[in-house]
Amino acid sequence: MKIGIVGLGLIGGSLALALRDGHDVTGYDTDERARSAAKADGIRIASRLEDLLPADAVLVATPISAIVPALEQLAARSDGAVLVDTGSLKRAVADYADRAPTGARIVGGHPMAGTTSAGFSAADPGLFRGRAFLLVPTARSDDHAMAVAGAIVREVGATVAVCSADVHDRAMARLVAGPLATAAALAVAGAQAEPLVAAAGPGFRDSTRLADTPADLATELLFGNAADSRAAIGSIIEGLTQLRDALERGDRDYARSFLQTARSVRRELG
Amino acid sequence: MKIGIVGLGLIGGSLALALRDGHDVTGYDTDERARSAAKADGIRIASRLEDLLPADAVLVATPISAIVPALEQLAARSDGAVLVDTGSLKRAVADYADRAPTGARIVGGHPMAGTTSAGFSAADPGLFRGRAFLLVPTARSDDHAMAVAGAIVREVGATVAVCSADVHDRAMARLVAGPLATAAALAVAGAQAEPLVAAAGPGFRDSTRLADTPADLATELLFGNAADSRAAIGSIIEGLTQLRDALERGDRDYARSFLQTARSVRRELG
Repeated sequence: MKIGIVGLGLIGGSLALALRDGHDVTGYDTDERARSAAKADGIRIASRLEDLLPADAVLVATPISAIVPALEQLAARSDGAVLVDTGSLKRAVADYADRAPTGARIVGGHPMAGTTSAGFSAADPGLFRGRAFLLVPTARSDDHAMAVAGAIVREVGATVAVCSADVHDRAMARLVAGPLATAAALAVAGAQAEPLVAAAGPGFRDSTRLADTPADLATELLFGNAADSRAAIGSIIEGLTQLRDALERGDRDYARSFLQTARSVRRELG
Repeated sequence: MKIGIVGLGLIGGSLALALRDGHDVTGYDTDERARSAAKADGIRIASRLEDLLPADAVLVATPISAIVPALEQLAARSDGAVLVDTGSLKRAVADYADRAPTGARIVGGHPMAGTTSAGFSAADPGLFRGRAFLLVPTARSDDHAMAVAGAIVREVGATVAVCSADVHDRAMARLVAGPLATAAALAVAGAQAEPLVAAAGPGFRDSTRLADTPADLATELLFGNAADSRAAIGSIIEGLTQLRDALERGDRDYARSFLQTARSVRRELG
């Protein structure tokens, strides 16, 4: 397939590296440094977004705020190309698809992979291997669009899971925004463990890893889905309050049962 | 040195494996299966706790509730042997040392290493390498006792950090109990992301890893230091509430600044 990739950061760069052996891949980024880095690694680079078309598929892996503008620009001349974004929120893409040109093909995508590192230098062709890659059908997703998106997901080694934009965004508040806010709250509370913070073991390190997310990206993830993020944070506060209350009244049985429930949820993840 | 080890689970077993090449190591466990597993791995086994003495040092790596009873039994006949425990709370050990026989040598110890796996089968001689190993001097810690404890810590590849029992237990509430409670609250809130929980990425997996701690151990860690655990959980709730309020009033600047502070704390851990 002829595949274009917009945005050559961690996700777009990793897609480019994972797909270039089997496909005719061209990348584009508004940032000159990202273009040079990708070019130095052998990725063919277009000098304008429009030059990615015509194509069988264009993957849009820009920061969230640039996704809909890029889709708009591409959809106007996509001529059947399947446009798939890779952002971590899907309602805005689904809303755009509702008003996109009738001939456009748009599928929401979200690879459940990532690191707190950013940029093409962190890109890794194995980033998606064994991970879920969520696909969200929109008003502009026909069978052909879903088949092309699914084929690309499988080729980068990920597993397809299909859901609606609503289900996706609510779940992500629980799986991404909540953990992000929590890691930040843990790190700030952990600072009060001075002078022993540096002695922290792997438990504290793992629990706070997401706090190393660049603050702009973290803010975007929280505020881009504010109502769901608030609800997710509320559920976490509720659980912590239940444990604190159990400690206050010396109720070990309640705490043990809560911890046991949490353990079963965690164990299902494998 | 002649070193005895009481409790051949993850920590005691790992100490035995890390020390046996350079020292005369004997282990003991009340559980027959643990004794057999350690014996099968070439660890010499005593049939009674008292048979670990005389020794240069005895390391007490039992569950928290059994530490002081083991120290009491050993101190009565320790004849200069340095007794070092490895539990994750230190006030009870310091309190016991206050009333221990005058000739006894007792140092509180806490290796900042561990996994959610338990038992001798999970033991690993490299478990402590590069980790901090906190040492808490007690009323029964003379220079010789601290020197012997320090030498053992360095031999298992860890770094010595010395602090008081109070500083230790308050800090651990922030670095261990708080993260544990939070991982449980996150996992329980995450269950509401069905049907997408199984699609959770590495962020959610890392954030909830501690929720896989056996519920009895987790309960002991929280309730063994209830007042400090409550305060730590309170600080985390406070941070989450600040982020939720910022979301509610659309205050991106406040959230970004909170997330930035959290990131600096996390970055200092390296």
